[in-house]
Amino acid sequence: MYKGGYTGKVLRVDLTSKTYKEEPLPADVAQDFIGGAGLTVKYLYDEVPADCDPLGPENKLIYAPGPFTGTTIPCASRMAINAKSPATGAVGVATTGGHFPVEMKRAGYDVIIIEGKADKPTYLWIKNGEVKFRDATDLWGLTTSDTQQVIKDELHDQNIRISCIGPAGEKLSRIACIVNERRVAGRKGLGAVMGSKNLKAIALRGDQQMTIADKEKYDAARKRMLEGMRKSPILYPEFSRYGTSTTLDLTQALGIYPAKNWTATGVFTPADKIGGYAIESRGMGKTACATCPVGCSQLRLAKEGPYMGFFTEGPEYETLYAFGGVTGVDNPDAIIACDRLADELGLDTMSAGVTIAFAMECFERGILTLEETGGLDLHFGNDVAMTKLLHMMGERQGLGDILAEGVKRAAEKIGRGSEKYAMHVKGLELPAYDVRGAKAHGLNYATAFTGADHNKGYAFQEIFGIPIPKPIDRLSYEGKGWLCKWNQDARTALADSPTMCVFLMDMAVADFMFENTANLMAGATGLSYTPEEVHQVGERINNLARVFNIKAGFTRADDDLPERLKTEPIPDGPSKGELISQADLDAMLDEYYDARGWTREGVPTRAKLEELRLGYAADALGI
Amino acid sequence: MYKGGYTGKVLRVDLTSKTYKEEPLPADVAQDFIGGAGLTVKYLYDEVPADCDPLGPENKLIYAPGPFTGTTIPCASRMAINAKSPATGAVGVATTGGHFPVEMKRAGYDVIIIEGKADKPTYLWIKNGEVKFRDATDLWGLTTSDTQQVIKDELHDQNIRISCIGPAGEKLSRIACIVNERRVAGRKGLGAVMGSKNLKAIALRGDQQMTIADKEKYDAARKRMLEGMRKSPILYPEFSRYGTSTTLDLTQALGIYPAKNWTATGVFTPADKIGGYAIESRGMGKTACATCPVGCSQLRLAKEGPYMGFFTEGPEYETLYAFGGVTGVDNPDAIIACDRLADELGLDTMSAGVTIAFAMECFERGILTLEETGGLDLHFGNDVAMTKLLHMMGERQGLGDILAEGVKRAAEKIGRGSEKYAMHVKGLELPAYDVRGAKAHGLNYATAFTGADHNKGYAFQEIFGIPIPKPIDRLSYEGKGWLCKWNQDARTALADSPTMCVFLMDMAVADFMFENTANLMAGATGLSYTPEEVHQVGERINNLARVFNIKAGFTRADDDLPERLKTEPIPDGPSKGELISQADLDAMLDEYYDARGWTREGVPTRAKLEELRLGYAADALGI
Repeated sequence: MYKGGYTGKVLRVDLTSKTYKEEPLPADVAQDFIGGAGLTVKYLYDEVPADCDPLGPENKLIYAPGPFTGTTIPCASRMAINAKSPATGAVGVATTGGHFPVEMKRAGYDVIIIEGKADKPTYLWIKNGEVKFRDATDLWGLTTSDTQQVIKDELHDQNIRISCIGPAGEKLSRIACIVNERRVAGRKGLGAVMGSKNLKAIALRGDQQMTIADKEKYDAARKRMLEGMRKSPILYPEFSRYGTSTTLDLTQALGIYPAKNWTATGVFTPADKIGGYAIESRGMGKTACATCPVGCSQLRLAKEGPYMGFFTEGPEYETLYAFGGVTGVDNPDAIIACDRLADELGLDTMSAGVTIAFAMECFERGILTLEETGGLDLHFGNDVAMTKLLHMMGERQGLGDILAEGVKRAAEKIGRGSEKYAMHVKGLELPAYDVRGAKAHGLNYATAFTGADHNKGYAFQEIFGIPIPKPIDRLSYEGKGWLCKWNQDARTALADSPTMCVFLMDMAVADFMFENTANLMAGATGLSYTPEEVHQVGERINNLARVFNIKAGFTRADDDLPERLKTEPIPDGPSKGELISQADLDAMLDEYYDARGWTREGVPTRAKLEELRLGYAADALGI
Repeated sequence: MYKGGYTGKVLRVDLTSKTYKEEPLPADVAQDFIGGAGLTVKYLYDEVPADCDPLGPENKLIYAPGPFTGTTIPCASRMAINAKSPATGAVGVATTGGHFPVEMKRAGYDVIIIEGKADKPTYLWIKNGEVKFRDATDLWGLTTSDTQQVIKDELHDQNIRISCIGPAGEKLSRIACIVNERRVAGRKGLGAVMGSKNLKAIALRGDQQMTIADKEKYDAARKRMLEGMRKSPILYPEFSRYGTSTTLDLTQALGIYPAKNWTATGVFTPADKIGGYAIESRGMGKTACATCPVGCSQLRLAKEGPYMGFFTEGPEYETLYAFGGVTGVDNPDAIIACDRLADELGLDTMSAGVTIAFAMECFERGILTLEETGGLDLHFGNDVAMTKLLHMMGERQGLGDILAEGVKRAAEKIGRGSEKYAMHVKGLELPAYDVRGAKAHGLNYATAFTGADHNKGYAFQEIFGIPIPKPIDRLSYEGKGWLCKWNQDARTALADSPTMCVFLMDMAVADFMFENTANLMAGATGLSYTPEEVHQVGERINNLARVFNIKAGFTRADDDLPERLKTEPIPDGPSKGELISQADLDAMLDEYYDARGWTREGVPTRAKLEELRLGYAADALGI
């Protein structure tokens, strides 16, 4: 039984009937799923029909910070948001930071489950356990920063924290995100789920303090963690100064920075213009999520020229790819502007950029005509056209209406052979690592339960050369099945569930990562885990999510990569000639399924599920 | 001696030496100038050399709310900001509302005087009497809303209130404004004064409560005022629902809505598209300044189309002219977008719009070529070009660099006969009343001590038909000299000094307006006035400001109107054929000077100045 860390309360809100109730958080659920992503997967699995329409009222939107959130454990103001994804049809969990996660715990809840559909635009105002359904008709159409300010003014409380959607979510764009402050739960189209429920925002405020189960254990674990952080060569000074931006310089050096819709990796190499060291010239300070001493969020501003005045928290590495490399743009101010514009419209930068890059390739190949683009010259590198098209996507006008569906559906709609230029897995657009030169990364794109999601099993061993749990050759296929499982489980257990910032995962040695979480859980919550049991929580979550996806119709055939990555080698640079052939992918998949204890069809076995206390999932599969 | 209402303290900040000190507010100064505009004129007169460079370190930036601000008197969260104006070279007082004025009193001050020049970008952080000089290097270049959010985040206090400049003020645009929340002290280029001092913002917070001198008198006066407000046919429902926007419908009906740089009044009549009743379709709620039960601020949003997502508090009537009639634009979403863009850049909407309209006329006449406009097609009505040019003005690029100086200097720089299309008085661009059809309004444009400023002596009798102090024929010249003086003094005494929202001036009958202020002053401050003495405070302020301007070099010749208004009749509509000839203007000026007890050269006499306890100003003039 947990004795601290958790509020112990789940808030269930029904938008259809405008009612809400509180439920206890079961102790065995907390033990098995910890919090955050884990809890949202558990509730999604239990409550949302796998075959439902993601934009229908049966889908549910589930928020969960973790048991570390709201305590004094550093870097724990993180949370997961989950629903069946409108982009993929699979589990759609996305994570975000900022101050909202802590405020949600202070407002009284470990989990908020939002059900049904409001009859008109609505926002929720939650204060210390009281929920109000407020008319959001007037807010419909507002950008995300204006939404937050107007709500604060309307409620006469500037200290409220708000999670909201922009016009893109309202208009059910399948690449719409959810925004809190300037932080984003970006991918998987969760903004459209919120929009489909006529829910513009959740505003909350509270003053509840988290209790700590065992002060002595807690202090010791926290102290050891802070020491590990101070010693980290990645957090200080690198990460604290540049955030994720210098990853561009690194991936370009490795030859895996994808360019021009993945046709020009190693050829278009703009690090000297838009790399992390280059764009420091646009820097203007930094900021941090609640309780974070690192402060990786770099603030950047276009100070002169046609984008003057555009300010953003970022652009993160992935956005430097989305509005940079993959679209062939090397104007840092245009990237800053589009980063801000996407946040304001409530569009995921990554999915938006990859979808624009797809349109650019179609335009260059003559598949899309000037008439279809509304007169926009969509050649790679045209930053003005990119900016305009991004606004059209938020507006859902002309070509933007089609592209707002995400690259998979846009290609299906456009047809004419464009499908092979749509860079996605399961409907989720590819992140900024050309996995032809980072094989475990590629396997994770193919198998992550949310689609091509670098955040579900990031192979940091391949990118940063960190030898945890052991040294890895990024270009080798050896052991990548096992490594991918290790990463997916570790990420889920250590970062996305307790919840804690993923950037702390590099600390010290592998064993300590799990021990650290076990120690903190014991101190904060009183729940007891061995390090192996912590890792197993991640495995449990990955298995339960897999079963949800199987019930939703996914098979081994969906654990795939875009054709281009399997047939066209990287054209130049340090990773020149690399690809992941179908045979190589198949071999990795076999090894991965084996490592997971799944069949070669990618289905968990009853034995594995029962080992993970998921017998009910085996029952559901009829195995 | 005052016993309430005032904090009794003046804060003097020297940016050069990074020092500050508090001084008492002298009781006789409070008695003679009340507060707000009055106090800022007094301090400006006493401390700023009339011949100084407005953008040099000798100029001072002076903030003052009034004795009503921070009390429970409704609609009193107003303040004046003053400096020698970079636009006109004259007294530059501008007023604004919002929450900052109340917060300034709560932070402890009746007046803040900012002197000197910081050696690098700086902002002031003032909390309950403590002043910190903080580095604003990182904030330089930020838009005004981002500036406010970043400062709140940086100081970890979301309840701070901030007055700041945008890029336009930093770049010393003489039409730059000062912004607090979404409220603006717009005209006279005060943003450039702030920029010239390397001052990005003033952030403040306080919890000081105003004391009340005589509770019984105060309650009675306040009650009577609230009763008057409730009975007002203008405040409710009209003003509370539409704000100033329906003034467009009214002025169009009167034939005095200026169009296409004052060439098409009565011809271009877009009320059906951008009038107050028309743009209610873009409405999305309203807001109010602190302590205001009316809430005239309408929130409006471009919900679809290329300007989708632009949200603004407004556009006020003057902005519906600036980015509407005078530029020949009838797209309400473009007006909303430019209103927001101007606020973000920190450009006065009125001056910016009139300056753009000037450029449009020059373009249509072939004075400005496509090459000079950077390829922009500046025909009247081109909203896309207007939006782009506005950003170029904030950026000071190309033609925008010239236009950022305001219409007078832009015309001087462009030359080639363009000067006669520059619609300004004393360097301040014309407001939204075609005074050829409203003669007292025209006389006020010619004589107001801040240039063509409708806010210094608004002839509401001519526009709204309010018979206070008596019925007036707007097209007649009879008695307009006297009326203009009455309005200028009343406005200054009743609204801009105590301080109180000008929109309350319509209540009940004329006599009560002055009695009301006298009663409130007695109750709140303990200072005693007859109604006539209240009106005389306005006269005193107008006279002292006039002497400052005379010392700065202004003469009767500057009390003028643009040539077009004197020679080109209104071409069509209900006021067709009207103009104000030089002879008519001269006659009005003579009557006005007579009414003021000034010489026919427009110089106050010693007798008048001594009557107003301004003997020292007579000494300064050597009369």
